[in-house]
Amino acid sequence: MDYKFSDRVQGLKPSAIREIFKYSSDSAYIPLSAGNPMPEAFPSEAIEKISRDLLLNTPVAALQYGTTEGYQPLRELLTDYMREKHKVGSEQDSLIITSGAQQVMDLFTKSLINPGDVIFCEEPSFIGSLNTFRSFEARLVGIAMEDDGVDIQALEQALKAEPRGKYFYTIPNFQNPSGITMSLEKRRSVYELCKKHGVMILEDNPYGELRYRGEDIPCIKSFDTDGIVMYAGTFSKVIAPGMRVGYAIGPSAVIQKMVVCKQGEDVHTNIWAQIVCQKFMEEFDYEAHLQSLRVMYRDRADYILKLLETYFKPKGISWSSFDGGLFAWCKLPKGVEMMDFCNRALKQQVCVVPGTAFLSNVEGNSDSFRINFSTPTRQQLDKGIEILSQLI
Amino acid sequence: MDYKFSDRVQGLKPSAIREIFKYSSDSAYIPLSAGNPMPEAFPSEAIEKISRDLLLNTPVAALQYGTTEGYQPLRELLTDYMREKHKVGSEQDSLIITSGAQQVMDLFTKSLINPGDVIFCEEPSFIGSLNTFRSFEARLVGIAMEDDGVDIQALEQALKAEPRGKYFYTIPNFQNPSGITMSLEKRRSVYELCKKHGVMILEDNPYGELRYRGEDIPCIKSFDTDGIVMYAGTFSKVIAPGMRVGYAIGPSAVIQKMVVCKQGEDVHTNIWAQIVCQKFMEEFDYEAHLQSLRVMYRDRADYILKLLETYFKPKGISWSSFDGGLFAWCKLPKGVEMMDFCNRALKQQVCVVPGTAFLSNVEGNSDSFRINFSTPTRQQLDKGIEILSQLI
Repeated sequence: MDYKFSDRVQGLKPSAIREIFKYSSDSAYIPLSAGNPMPEAFPSEAIEKISRDLLLNTPVAALQYGTTEGYQPLRELLTDYMREKHKVGSEQDSLIITSGAQQVMDLFTKSLINPGDVIFCEEPSFIGSLNTFRSFEARLVGIAMEDDGVDIQALEQALKAEPRGKYFYTIPNFQNPSGITMSLEKRRSVYELCKKHGVMILEDNPYGELRYRGEDIPCIKSFDTDGIVMYAGTFSKVIAPGMRVGYAIGPSAVIQKMVVCKQGEDVHTNIWAQIVCQKFMEEFDYEAHLQSLRVMYRDRADYILKLLETYFKPKGISWSSFDGGLFAWCKLPKGVEMMDFCNRALKQQVCVVPGTAFLSNVEGNSDSFRINFSTPTRQQLDKGIEILSQLI
Repeated sequence: MDYKFSDRVQGLKPSAIREIFKYSSDSAYIPLSAGNPMPEAFPSEAIEKISRDLLLNTPVAALQYGTTEGYQPLRELLTDYMREKHKVGSEQDSLIITSGAQQVMDLFTKSLINPGDVIFCEEPSFIGSLNTFRSFEARLVGIAMEDDGVDIQALEQALKAEPRGKYFYTIPNFQNPSGITMSLEKRRSVYELCKKHGVMILEDNPYGELRYRGEDIPCIKSFDTDGIVMYAGTFSKVIAPGMRVGYAIGPSAVIQKMVVCKQGEDVHTNIWAQIVCQKFMEEFDYEAHLQSLRVMYRDRADYILKLLETYFKPKGISWSSFDGGLFAWCKLPKGVEMMDFCNRALKQQVCVVPGTAFLSNVEGNSDSFRINFSTPTRQQLDKGIEILSQLI
């Protein structure tokens, strides 16, 4: 049969980058290209305890259909927690539990974007979200990044130039892939600018709790007195990603549309996982757990930074500084062609992600590549970084 | 802020039916309107055993990111099982694990439907799927049902009349809401007609294993030598719906697009739940479990049938016969207005679903309502059916 696909998926081509991702799960390769949290960081004993208690004593609660908005005790707990700890959420907002934060990107985009509408995004930005936006035929307008976050003047120009702008997508903390954190000043400017131009903000904060240096900076959502910010959170980096539990906090009118879309997408998120998250936050020492994660990630980050100093610096490969998260964003010296470098790395069985993967225009140019330091072991990092340095 | 929603969600209005559904979870009401499987049917002891073993011995396998296509051992097991037991799937097909069968509806529609494209559906049909189709701005064309399945002549006329027809959506076994099972002869006719008109078939089979009377009839997918059928299966009715594990088996070219869409929607389905399904099928006596479900559902079905004979028949309320599934589809006598009947039932704290909920055109007329007999207790059934009969 000659399948007639929809316009929105017709354009989705398998990219050159998929080839590289494929090797990430091959154990013969050193997976510097993944984005997995450290498996040592999963509180698996606590999860087992919660799970056993749940399945022995109240199995039907975990196994029967649930409501689309999410497991009510988890919704209430998260609402309070995010308001008290991060000033995220107000009386005008609601909270929906999603199947990972990826589903926030999907539901928000489905609710707002018509084909041809514009989404402003940081350049570079997270490939997973960009692909979701593309799947609804949004037009992506990339805004250059500076060391302290998005270029505000460039954002202002773009907001003026694009009457079909619907929202600005940002990962303000330890951005994927660049590691950059947006300054407080810029967060305020972004908020004011978007408000002025009637454009919403999608604030994606998967790594916010993984700050291992410096002071927390308030979320953009904490300024939101005008109901223009949708905040996306997730348990993937702080409990475990295989559970697929995320959430969105945003204006109730928008959340209502997202609930209708979620109903038609997966009815609700796995209940066992929602209860595990709720009980883990409530019955265990959640703050101590987060603190132990920060120590674990700081150790690993310090380790890779030493390797970069030793192997990359002498070869002229530079990197953005980062105070949290899982990634190092590295820039090749002049004269080294990035795609060729990544392909040669692959031949030596080291996987890194080419910078072009993170561009609003995949045909664009990049002299950078992304390294993940939470998936590989220290031994793999040693070997991988050394091999990469020898390619120069 | 004045939110500018996308065209696709702009049109999604909260319906009168949602009001009735809201009461289903209120314990003061008798929930004849739900679609929950019997909680006694969940193999919770086995799930607890599998879960404990998994989380104690190989927690990272259950908690780390997985692949979008699904947990490989489950994919392989299901592929073999469906080919051997049901002749569903061939070398031209692939299998994707989804977050419930609802996500099959979503991914398939997203991959195929442009706004204004036509989906043919049985009239009445499952409201959840119809709403998913609407969310992609499909135009629904309802085809009347007869006692042995869809009206073949009406389907043929519609296929001829609609050049933008993309697929025919069917629940061939114990259809929701009508309880009707399509005859083998009609299944063959549907297949040949759709093939002739270049239209695909989306075969949704959530209740197929819950046949408690009569002989299994081959799936439409088992005739599919032309790669025109997408088959949707689920563990919701045979293990537990809160886990959200479903699957699709269909032409590889279409499944590939669905994988890309799923990547952008929730990355992958909860891994714990996928492993629970795989281990339950592999390490426990799955066929004996299915057999015990059939006995349980037959008992419950016999129970409601007696109540219908006792209370409904004398009042002129008739019902479609059914050999499996969870629903009784009841038709009011002439002169009783359906929506008024359902609202009066609600005032007596009995929830049933008005027939209009299941129409391709929600503004259409219906003299029927749906009763679910797996969620309420026997006592609730006694009371609910008696109250309903007194409304006539």
